[in-house]
Amino acid sequence: MSDTKTAITPRRDQDFPEWYQQVVRAADMAENSDVRGCMVIKPWGYGLWENIQRQLDAMFKATGHKNAYFPLFIPISYLEKEAAHVEGFAKECAVVTHHRLEVGPDGKMRPAPSAELTEPLVVRPTSETIIGATYAKWVQSYRDLPILINQWANVVRWEMRPRVFLRTAEFLWQEGHTAHETKAEAIEETEKMLGVYATFAREHLAVPVYSGEKSESERFPGADRTLCIEAMVQDRKAIQAGTSHFLGQNFAKSSGIKFQSREGKEEFAWTTSWGVSTRLIGTLIMAHADDDGMIVPPRVAPTHVVILPVTPKPDTRDAVLEAAHRLANEIRAQRFHGDPVVVEVDQRDLGGGTKNWEWIKKGAPVRIELGPRDLAQGTVALVRRDQGVKDKAFLPAAEVPAQIPAILQSIQDGLYAKALAYRDANTRPVETREEFYAFFTPKDQNKPEIHGGFANAHWCGCGKCEEEIKADLKVTIRCIPFDAAEEAGKCVVCGQESKRRVLWAKSY
Amino acid sequence: MSDTKTAITPRRDQDFPEWYQQVVRAADMAENSDVRGCMVIKPWGYGLWENIQRQLDAMFKATGHKNAYFPLFIPISYLEKEAAHVEGFAKECAVVTHHRLEVGPDGKMRPAPSAELTEPLVVRPTSETIIGATYAKWVQSYRDLPILINQWANVVRWEMRPRVFLRTAEFLWQEGHTAHETKAEAIEETEKMLGVYATFAREHLAVPVYSGEKSESERFPGADRTLCIEAMVQDRKAIQAGTSHFLGQNFAKSSGIKFQSREGKEEFAWTTSWGVSTRLIGTLIMAHADDDGMIVPPRVAPTHVVILPVTPKPDTRDAVLEAAHRLANEIRAQRFHGDPVVVEVDQRDLGGGTKNWEWIKKGAPVRIELGPRDLAQGTVALVRRDQGVKDKAFLPAAEVPAQIPAILQSIQDGLYAKALAYRDANTRPVETREEFYAFFTPKDQNKPEIHGGFANAHWCGCGKCEEEIKADLKVTIRCIPFDAAEEAGKCVVCGQESKRRVLWAKSY
Repeated sequence: MSDTKTAITPRRDQDFPEWYQQVVRAADMAENSDVRGCMVIKPWGYGLWENIQRQLDAMFKATGHKNAYFPLFIPISYLEKEAAHVEGFAKECAVVTHHRLEVGPDGKMRPAPSAELTEPLVVRPTSETIIGATYAKWVQSYRDLPILINQWANVVRWEMRPRVFLRTAEFLWQEGHTAHETKAEAIEETEKMLGVYATFAREHLAVPVYSGEKSESERFPGADRTLCIEAMVQDRKAIQAGTSHFLGQNFAKSSGIKFQSREGKEEFAWTTSWGVSTRLIGTLIMAHADDDGMIVPPRVAPTHVVILPVTPKPDTRDAVLEAAHRLANEIRAQRFHGDPVVVEVDQRDLGGGTKNWEWIKKGAPVRIELGPRDLAQGTVALVRRDQGVKDKAFLPAAEVPAQIPAILQSIQDGLYAKALAYRDANTRPVETREEFYAFFTPKDQNKPEIHGGFANAHWCGCGKCEEEIKADLKVTIRCIPFDAAEEAGKCVVCGQESKRRVLWAKSY
Repeated sequence: MSDTKTAITPRRDQDFPEWYQQVVRAADMAENSDVRGCMVIKPWGYGLWENIQRQLDAMFKATGHKNAYFPLFIPISYLEKEAAHVEGFAKECAVVTHHRLEVGPDGKMRPAPSAELTEPLVVRPTSETIIGATYAKWVQSYRDLPILINQWANVVRWEMRPRVFLRTAEFLWQEGHTAHETKAEAIEETEKMLGVYATFAREHLAVPVYSGEKSESERFPGADRTLCIEAMVQDRKAIQAGTSHFLGQNFAKSSGIKFQSREGKEEFAWTTSWGVSTRLIGTLIMAHADDDGMIVPPRVAPTHVVILPVTPKPDTRDAVLEAAHRLANEIRAQRFHGDPVVVEVDQRDLGGGTKNWEWIKKGAPVRIELGPRDLAQGTVALVRRDQGVKDKAFLPAAEVPAQIPAILQSIQDGLYAKALAYRDANTRPVETREEFYAFFTPKDQNKPEIHGGFANAHWCGCGKCEEEIKADLKVTIRCIPFDAAEEAGKCVVCGQESKRRVLWAKSY
């Protein structure tokens, strides 16, 4: 490890959790608010979320879904209808009990005792129950199915140890909720939407993922099956980046989503739900950022190209600025994946070094410097964020615009390739219990994150083995990968017969 | 009034409030949820909101604003910082007091007494205080100004008499929050954003609006000045369609948004806020719908053109469907205000009449029928939603796609012209108190909505006159129009000297 000075202190290899917090801050993406567990998403972070929203939304619509909006509040009695569901969420619910404030005896505002709700309301931690109650009204006949709806919304799950983007009391997400005539159709939908997430993660976020199914202990409360995509980040831990649940008839039964079938019989619908959240931004940071700050994959970058005019002297200033804006407009005329390239000319009255480092830390994919000398020579200096800070390419200005889309795609592809190589280098078959414990035990107790990575190891299928490993090592089964071939072996925990390997890891 | 049967019962002239509810239902735009005061926005209504969002968002960005996201929850102590503000919102706040549920002694879920919050949190009714606290951290120097940020979010104001889209406990909106170095800049921003709203209302929603300033009694709690756009709907009442507030230094002082000025002095920033909400959808319905249901202005329509294939016989069915989809694709290649025309082929297995009337009630701008006979003749039957149900134009199929953008624009322009003519016909100068009372008194007590409309009448400027009229007639000053010329006159209430006319109306 070289001792070159980095923009982020500490470096990843020194203290990964603290490095993460410092990158979020340095990239100006978000901050903790004074409201416990709630974050403020700043324009650069929110711009990233807007791109994620827009692109995923188009994929949802292309697969036949429409958006709608359901209430923020859920009566406790709704949550209670599905036993496993309420059990799963009761401990983290924000509860509304009053609908008015008044001045109390101490002169301060308090909830008005006369305005206590008869039935308290929970701020939605997820919307299966309130949406189920609505679908029950909408569905009478098989002709009313399928219902294919998505909602973009905020949700609240009270967190005791919040961490910006990764685990916050309030977060933003989308939740798809569908109802179907048959079990097969609902399973097909569950799988299809996981496929959408996997494609999005790989192609838009440049994050390779394993797709698979959760074991019973990791299932969504109330689901029959939970499918997931799991990514590896740079401390070799796993992060669940998206889930898709086959809910069977559980919520249909508890909410009363019944329909008259083609045969004239009354049947319960089969439902699914699926979601991704602002956690994806945390995933992106931990997957791609380096010791100088964030690196945003071009496909979701709020700004693709930043032009930094260098204006040392008043007499050349106007000419440089004019050239910078002309170049910006030429680049904006280029398209990247169908949309115009987004360019910002940073002409703030700040030192060039300060501005340059701000954009490095934010992770804008391409920076272009343009000063009086460049102007005279008809060149610009172009720097890619995925290359060294001083790796400047001096290019003829006239040729730059046409090259930008290919440069952006090259950065995008490079980020993916790098993340894939890292993941694959740190995913290993593990055969014995001893090897398994060694794999997950940090070599250096001062750096508890540094361990083997993902272990591909046999599992007998019983929950007891999972519990034992979780208690000992904080390691869980991330998924039973779809592409795991049948293979006879012995459970890495208990030694019993096993039919396939599953993916084990420490996780966020 | 003819007795032709209409799709909506009652008609507008029979019972306007009930007609409104029936249009919302028939157009399948929204419904009341089981959660008191909260609505479910269904795909057709939400699709409209998505278009409003996308188009307004582009206008905000074109004026230099970026989006961000702030917490849903506001500590009571924040709300209390600005006295007028808390006074204005205390009575309608949903209050979170607990962060966990547990099983109570009766076996039912309840808020866990051990999880009571030290300081209760209010679900944001608006975000000036929480955003002000954040800006206070972001702003140190005049170089940090202006801050130009917008947020798309849900807000909650507990409503005792909720009405879908118009007044709901939870609604969706955007709230712009900006901070400036000087008073003049903040006022300029306040006026600029009102201008954006007025342009959007006119050109996108086809709703003419009066722009002006609120009198003191109608100001936003905590604002120095509130600007607004006011529309007239078909019962001649006013609806406030958007507001823009100049907040002076009130929130800067209560939140501590201070900066070092160019002269090195510590000064408070000048702030603004501005918003529109899902109420705009209610405005659209009341402004444009007729006795057969909704009429969506093409610029914000989720679907512009619906193709209804007529397939009476199995042997021609495939050919008709193929032609329908071919036509749909040809129309999709056309652009309307820069975006592709949105076309839906409705080939659901339902009767042609049922489908046709569904789209009439939803208000899709253009319907095209295409059957075996049309196919043979190379024609289609095109019906505009702003014309009679039976006013079919039989057009050569090959010529239709190229004509669609002009037809959509003609519908858009026609809706605006009609709304403008209606408003102008029902806006009148009123000179005396007697005339004023007569103007606002319903002729028929069974139809309390039917009154004169907007009165342009002199006002002395005192709150007492406003209160008197409000108590007597439920009439308020909607705005002091920007374009009101100075003109000597007598206050219509008290007869004192007045310098200008203001706009009086009953309102939503």
